[in-house]
This record gives sequence, structure tokens and C-alpha cells, in this order.
Amino acid sequence: MNDLKKYMQQLGQNAKTAAREIAKASAGQKNKALEVMADEIEANKDALLDANALDMAAGKENGLDEALLDRLALDEERLEGIAEGLRQIAALPDPVGEMSQINAMASGIKVGHMRVPLGVIGIIYESRPNVTADAAALCLKSGNACILRGGSEAKHSNLAIAKCIRKGLQAAGLAADIVQVIETTDRAAVGELVRMEGFVDVIIPRGGKGLIERISQEARVPVIKHLHGVCHVYIDDYANSEMALSIALNAKTQRYGTCNTMETLLVSKAVASDLLPKLAVLYNEKGVELRGCETTRSLIDGCVAATAEDWDEEYLAPILSIRVVDGIEQAMDHIHQHSSSHTESIITENHTNAMRFLREVDSSSVMINASTRFADGFEYGLGAEIGISTNKLHVRGPVGLEGLTTQKFIVFGEGQIRQ
Amino acid sequence: MNDLKKYMQQLGQNAKTAAREIAKASAGQKNKALEVMADEIEANKDALLDANALDMAAGKENGLDEALLDRLALDEERLEGIAEGLRQIAALPDPVGEMSQINAMASGIKVGHMRVPLGVIGIIYESRPNVTADAAALCLKSGNACILRGGSEAKHSNLAIAKCIRKGLQAAGLAADIVQVIETTDRAAVGELVRMEGFVDVIIPRGGKGLIERISQEARVPVIKHLHGVCHVYIDDYANSEMALSIALNAKTQRYGTCNTMETLLVSKAVASDLLPKLAVLYNEKGVELRGCETTRSLIDGCVAATAEDWDEEYLAPILSIRVVDGIEQAMDHIHQHSSSHTESIITENHTNAMRFLREVDSSSVMINASTRFADGFEYGLGAEIGISTNKLHVRGPVGLEGLTTQKFIVFGEGQIRQ
Repeated sequence: MNDLKKYMQQLGQNAKTAAREIAKASAGQKNKALEVMADEIEANKDALLDANALDMAAGKENGLDEALLDRLALDEERLEGIAEGLRQIAALPDPVGEMSQINAMASGIKVGHMRVPLGVIGIIYESRPNVTADAAALCLKSGNACILRGGSEAKHSNLAIAKCIRKGLQAAGLAADIVQVIETTDRAAVGELVRMEGFVDVIIPRGGKGLIERISQEARVPVIKHLHGVCHVYIDDYANSEMALSIALNAKTQRYGTCNTMETLLVSKAVASDLLPKLAVLYNEKGVELRGCETTRSLIDGCVAATAEDWDEEYLAPILSIRVVDGIEQAMDHIHQHSSSHTESIITENHTNAMRFLREVDSSSVMINASTRFADGFEYGLGAEIGISTNKLHVRGPVGLEGLTTQKFIVFGEGQIRQ
Repeated sequence: MNDLKKYMQQLGQNAKTAAREIAKASAGQKNKALEVMADEIEANKDALLDANALDMAAGKENGLDEALLDRLALDEERLEGIAEGLRQIAALPDPVGEMSQINAMASGIKVGHMRVPLGVIGIIYESRPNVTADAAALCLKSGNACILRGGSEAKHSNLAIAKCIRKGLQAAGLAADIVQVIETTDRAAVGELVRMEGFVDVIIPRGGKGLIERISQEARVPVIKHLHGVCHVYIDDYANSEMALSIALNAKTQRYGTCNTMETLLVSKAVASDLLPKLAVLYNEKGVELRGCETTRSLIDGCVAATAEDWDEEYLAPILSIRVVDGIEQAMDHIHQHSSSHTESIITENHTNAMRFLREVDSSSVMINASTRFADGFEYGLGAEIGISTNKLHVRGPVGLEGLTTQKFIVFGEGQIRQ
């Protein structure tokens, strides 16, 4: 066994031991740890900014682009945000230990469910140092041990944050190994982490598509992930026009680089000639490039022809593909064929069409009259979010009818757009 | 692409199309299909028994052992059992479409969950032809399409049952491809099935450890499974003696070959000298071979020394390993180290110890004062069961605190044993 493998196995062993301790920690102990962590972040601002300055200097020397440097940078305000985030997670209810659905059986036994931690979570992420604190806090509060692997460009910042985390754990009388940060920047460490089936229960990659694809290929541990977000809005025959314009604009332009941004707009032919010219004006004002089907191009000017590839593209940019469809049936066919099963929304006042869309579209979030941009842990009231999953499997113990199903999030709106 | 690959891809494509249809079928349509299937099984008993006779003759010629031939055999009573099973699944409530936890958010949107099918389920099983009907019925009722691959030794029986299933689907106006049986006996078909990520959402293997290990190695599709059932009963200091004897006997001897049978008995030293001699008499009467730790051997006669391997062994036979422990702490350490995370039970009248065990033991079922033999979909009131899962992952959509947890089954008993 080489040194790296030995090092990683040791981290795994430490995490497994620590997982038993954090699994049984009280909510009070966990909240205490989170609050002290927040205090430590605030008390050590200078040391944290110094550490970050080392990363920033190295980043500039290594020619990181502006966007990456911006993600890497810490300042007073961002540190305050990290501390605030820790306190918010402390304020959330503890999910562990909740007992539910306890029913008496014919034999006299009572059977129910208890919510329990997953065990050890491995998190692999890129530049942003705040993820170190966020991810550690979410894992801690949910009773899990974690092994964190941040980007090598954020090494000094991450280790400085990890020091604050360790102090919080110690202040609450908890083992420091509940949160471990991988100290080597050797890329092979990631390969080891995702294959440590005996020690790691789940891997969560946070980063670009390249990172997630590589990890999915290599992993032997289950991965919580979504690969793309090719999200659709369908404007139905019975849409409220004003609502349709407002949501279609918001879903595309409120932010371009997020996974819940609309990439393809589907418009029923019954309303296309009325709405598409109005929408084209709105998108033009925002500088959005439009790529349309033939009918779309006959209705609006300056729209280039969409190619077959456009329907599967996650632009993450001010580009939108538009297709005019015969109605809800063809819209759902299009979604079935091209969606990444992340988030889809229908704009309609017709109850039957709304409920058909809700039931038949198989995505992790399905919405009625709301912007796809709402697909987010904070907006859903989860309090915080570690990512969005398009995985389906969720079953433990005897598998009956319910075990052969999954759940999706459903959203009922009245035209809300994301502020 | 070779012919087998083409054939399997075609099945996958058919299943994916059929999955959309069954996902939106009404409960009435699904129940109609199940009831006609049951009628068809009864109306075609002769044809089914003829088909089974071909399999039995071939099995004998190929030298299948008695146990396998018994599992393969159909008779009037077993066919009646299959029809009855189909009707029972028709009588269960439809899990699909259930909406829950719908709450209003600050933005005004309402967010909740909807229960939906998984999509396409691949089921790989051995000899028993009744699995063809059971598995198809569970998948159908839960709104999933399925691709079934039974043992080659049951080929004729499975195809004859599949014919009845197809008639049921047609009678309910549903596509026959909702249930497809792989017709080739080429073993490479299994390898294809478990790697068809684009078409198959989950694989469920039903069979011996060899089958499950092979499939887990090869699969790229998620697998619902448990590999072993090394289940423990811990008799605490504060156990009711009569209850302890009754449950320890039942958990081992009610059936030997099942995954929820106790394989290791842990006894607190405070009660070992009283209970172990009495238990030894009971186990002797049943012909159970005992393998014990040193203390166990000092308390009872005719007990061989347990080796290190015994603590990890799933005997599936009249063999039991016994260890005397210092108390609940050491019992949970032993379980943490050796359990397969399937099912564990504590026998105690002490509330604090009972609740600690319930909370801290990380298995798919954790019980208080009940026999491990209860870990079963029927006994848990699920109505039917397609297997038992020791998987943990269950998360779709935005992942918050709850998404970083899982659920286990918990069982409260008052000494119940399995009849």
C-alpha cells in the first residue's frame, strides 16, 4: 500500500469511528459546536484573510481567470456570511431521531420509521472556501462525519476554516475527526476517496460538469448528484399571458449560470403568435440570444435556427432555445426526450392540464405557474442545501410498493418569480 | 453491436416507452389487470403444469438437486397461491400520486412531495417461477415497467406465466411491454441488463449471495439489495428471562435459511449463567450446533469454540455463535463490527437501554423485545415485499438536512415471536 492510500484509509477509519459519536450527539451539543465555529470565524478574521491572501497570490501567479479568483476571494463580508450560515444551520430543527408512521401489526408488534444519519459523507468541491464551513455544518447537524476535499487553489483558506471548525467541535466536547479536511493536494486522493466503500457511505461532488462526470465514472460509493440542468418552461394554450411573460423572462434571465435556469422554452401554437413577439422584445433587452424551431423563426426576427443539439444543451449563458409545440402532449414528449429531469414548469390556468403535467413529468421538481429558479433548498424551506439530486433510489429495509416508488418535489405557484 | 445487445436494447426501449404509460395508469386499470392475471392463472392450470413438467424433466436430466427441484416445482396449490398473491396486490392501496407535506413558503409558492414510480425495474432471479408473477405484480401496481430474467431452468414455466400476465395487461387496455420476460437463456443478457443505464432505473436481484455479488460487481444501474443477513439478538442485564428464552429460540429456529434469522446471540454476563444453560437445552432439542466464546463454553457443555470467522458468518443453517458481553456497550460494539446492518433486536425491560439500542444501532431494522424473524414486508404491514434493502441512499431534488439522513425500520415488541 502506498503512502497516499495509507493516509486516506486512516482518514476513513477515523471518520467511521467519529460517525458513531456524532450520530448519537444531542441537538444541543451539535448547535453549541456550530455556534462556537461561527464565533471562531469572527474572532479570527485576520488570520483567515491572511491565509486567503496566500491562496489569492498563488492563484494570480498560476494565471487563474477572474471568475475563479472571485470565487476564491474572502473578505470581511464573506466571512460574516459564513458565520451567519453556521448560526442558521444551528437554528434548524435536528432531523435525527424523528420517529414516524408507527402502526400496530396483527402480530402485536408496532412498526415505524426512525430518521438516522447516513454515516460518513465525502464532499469534493472546487475553489469557494465557504463550502468548507457550509458542508461541514450540514453534515454535523444531520449527524454525519465528513471528509472534505476542496480545490488545491483554496488550500490555505480551507485549512484556516478547518481550524475554526475543530475548535467548535472541541468546545462542544465532540471528536475533532467528525470533520476532516484532506491535507494533500495530490489529485489521486479523490480517486481513493470515492472508492473507499468500507468507510464512506456517500459522495457529494460540488462543482462543474467535468468534476461530476469524472467522479461518477470512478466512484464505487453512491454519489448524490445531478449532471446537468436542462430545465423547461411550457406555456400552455390556457396560460395567463402576463404571468407567462413574467415567468419565462425570470426563469431565463434572473441568473444565467445556475442549474435551475430555463434552457428551453416550449410554447403552445395556440398562443405562440401572440406571446413570442412580446417575449423576443424582453429577451432582446437583456441581450439573450434566441435559437428557434421553424415556426418560432417565422414569428420573430433575429432568431437563429436551433440545431438538434440545442434541445439537449445546458447553456449556462444568455442563450435560449424555443420550440412551438402542438399542445401539452407534444410538450411532455419533448421534455421526456430532452430533459435532464431536474426541474420543469407549466404555465396554465387549466386545472386538468396543470395536474397532468404535475403527475406525468418525471423530474426532481415539477411546478405549476412558478419560475424554475425556485428549485432550491432555501426557497423550498429546507433551511439550507448541499446540492440538488436527480437520483431516484431511496429504500432501506423490506421493500414493498412504497419502496418501488420515489418522491419528487411539486410546486404550486400563482405566477411567482424569483427576486 | 451484436444480436444479444440489439435484443436487450430493444427490450430497454420498449420498457422505457411502456413506463410512461403505466406511470399514469389509474389504480382501477392496474387492479383490473391484476385480477384478470389471477383468473388467467386459474383458467390455464393445465397449460402451466405442462410447461412446468418440461422444466422439471430437464432439471432432473441436468441433475438439479432436490432443493432446487422443489423450488422449481408447480402444483395446483402453488398456482392457487400465485393467483391469490395477485389478488392481494390488487387489494393494496395505490402508492402513486400521493401528495404530502405541502407547505407555503415565504415567496408564496406551495412546496410538497408527490410519490412517483421509479421507471423501469430489472429483476434477476433464480428457479422459483412464482417470482415472475409476484415481481410483475408489484412493479405494475407501483406504476413501473419491468424486465424479468428468471433462471434458465424455469424457462417454460416463466413464459407460460408471462402469457397470463400479458392477457391481464391487454384486458385492462395496457401495453403488453409493461412486463417483458427475457426469452434468451444466454447468461450475457444479465450483464447487458445491469449496464443499460439509459433504459433501466434500478436492478433487484433475488437469489443467493453468489448471484448478488456478481450483479453488484457488474452493475452500472443502482441495485436494491442486501448481501448477507448476519442478524443479532442481544439479551440485556434487564431482560425478562422467559421472553429472552422464547425470542432467542424463535429467532434462530423458526426457519434456518432466511436472511432475518439470528446468526449470533449476545448475552450480558449479568444473566449469562442463568440463561445460557437453559438456552443450551432448548437449542439441543432442535439440533442446533453451538459455537461459543470462552465464557459461554465455561457455562454450557457441548459447545465448540467459536473462531474469529464465526462472528461474521451467515450460517443459514442450524448453527449459532454465542458471545457473553459486559453489557449493552460491548454488545453494540460487537454489532457495529460484525453486523451486516440487516436486523438486530435487544431483549430488555430497561427503558434507557432499549432507547439507546434503538437509536444507536445502525441497521435497516432495529427491534425491542421482538424476534428478528419479523423483519419482513408482510409482517411490517407493507402488504407484499420484493426484497429487503440495506441501501441507505434516498434523496431526490434539493438536498437539505433530511436528504443527508435515511430511515430505518423500528419495531417495538412485548416478547412477540414469529408463528
